[in-house]
Amino acid sequence: MIENVTLIGAGNVAHHLGQALHASGIRIAQIYSRNYHKTKELAELVSAEALSEWEQLKPCDLVVIAVSDQAIPEVAALLSRFLPADTLVVHTSGATPSAIIASHFQRYGVLYPPQTFTIGRELDFSETPICIHAGNEEDMLLLEALGKRIAKSVFRIDDMQRRWLHLSAVLVNNFPNHLYTLAEQVLQDHQLPFELLKPLILETARKVQDHSPSLMQTGPAQRGDQATMEAHLRLLEEYPGVMEIYSIISRNIREE
Amino acid sequence: MIENVTLIGAGNVAHHLGQALHASGIRIAQIYSRNYHKTKELAELVSAEALSEWEQLKPCDLVVIAVSDQAIPEVAALLSRFLPADTLVVHTSGATPSAIIASHFQRYGVLYPPQTFTIGRELDFSETPICIHAGNEEDMLLLEALGKRIAKSVFRIDDMQRRWLHLSAVLVNNFPNHLYTLAEQVLQDHQLPFELLKPLILETARKVQDHSPSLMQTGPAQRGDQATMEAHLRLLEEYPGVMEIYSIISRNIREE
Repeated sequence: MIENVTLIGAGNVAHHLGQALHASGIRIAQIYSRNYHKTKELAELVSAEALSEWEQLKPCDLVVIAVSDQAIPEVAALLSRFLPADTLVVHTSGATPSAIIASHFQRYGVLYPPQTFTIGRELDFSETPICIHAGNEEDMLLLEALGKRIAKSVFRIDDMQRRWLHLSAVLVNNFPNHLYTLAEQVLQDHQLPFELLKPLILETARKVQDHSPSLMQTGPAQRGDQATMEAHLRLLEEYPGVMEIYSIISRNIREE
Repeated sequence: MIENVTLIGAGNVAHHLGQALHASGIRIAQIYSRNYHKTKELAELVSAEALSEWEQLKPCDLVVIAVSDQAIPEVAALLSRFLPADTLVVHTSGATPSAIIASHFQRYGVLYPPQTFTIGRELDFSETPICIHAGNEEDMLLLEALGKRIAKSVFRIDDMQRRWLHLSAVLVNNFPNHLYTLAEQVLQDHQLPFELLKPLILETARKVQDHSPSLMQTGPAQRGDQATMEAHLRLLEEYPGVMEIYSIISRNIREE
């Protein structure tokens, strides 16, 4: 059983995951990140030791690397200089193969929560599914047990599936947020507050909690309402970027 | 004061608006729609008289036309044959000019709730802003008072602003829902349940309730992470439609 975790990183994922682990009774022994100030801040929240040097690392049951994707290879390499080769080491990235850790540690894996985290923003972590992967069945079971302590659902997802899942997360998170941004701009340019659309945004997201989005599609493109689409495209002559997005998504909806 | 409303239509908007009016103590006297079965169903919910013929229409304080956009002109014309010319008549459409009613009634207006309604799906109507417009100040005040009985916020929005608002509603409702649909498909093709993304979808919508979406943008495009974007585009060779949407939105995010 995993009782003693070392956390690398002090950003959004490290904060939320660290606090969830701590709250579930798992001991975060040590935290290291590039920024000692941030390390200390998080360490205080989860009663951990804040490290300023790699050399201070002590053996533990699990190391969780929650740093930016680009930094993972370097961190894995550094860890291998200070920790036993049989330490279980996982990263939390949706876009990074587990092989990057496997080249330094025999026991490697992934603990990926497909969620958008913001430091200081409250979120019920237990609602976020935890996607796990490990190089062997024993470690898979260890991660599964750990995942179940902090989340209601734990899924075994291999590297290839995780790539697709991460891509899909971009489609449902980054892209809708960009559409919200475009709408906010358009409204602002016409003296309309973004408040007007907030309940609609929330209800759109709520609907697909209970129903397949494929059955919830509405709007001019869905019903083939050419008049409205043409009127929208004429309005959008002032916004060529939005116009392009409007045309392509509308066409894609019609072709479904 | 408006105390006595006639409702035309028995679809999603008519259902939710009718029930909100009824719950606030406003009397829905009569309902007419093309489908008598649906008319009766809604009439029973709001203690109204279900009409089967236009000829049965009686004078009232306000007529609310909650039918499809294309049917509004015909309905307005028909109403003018059976109701006094000084009846206040409004529609609930985001995409339809108020002039369509003005050509039949001196007292005309709009009562537009920018929301996505589904019959049978519970929704706190009072959270949805009501956008009103009327041909004169007196009717504006009447609609404002009515709006405040069923919603926390009422906005005066002229025809041109309402067009922009409706267009923006497509951006934040129809288009994100299509992106959810694409993600569901991609996941399904790789033996992954859509459940995995539901908490992320909800949190993405919740975040912009408190923060401007322009400050909440994350993801590979936002941070200029070419490696991840190229990896995603390579994956998407199987999905040319999704690939096109991915490229264009990513480019648009980078150019912001």
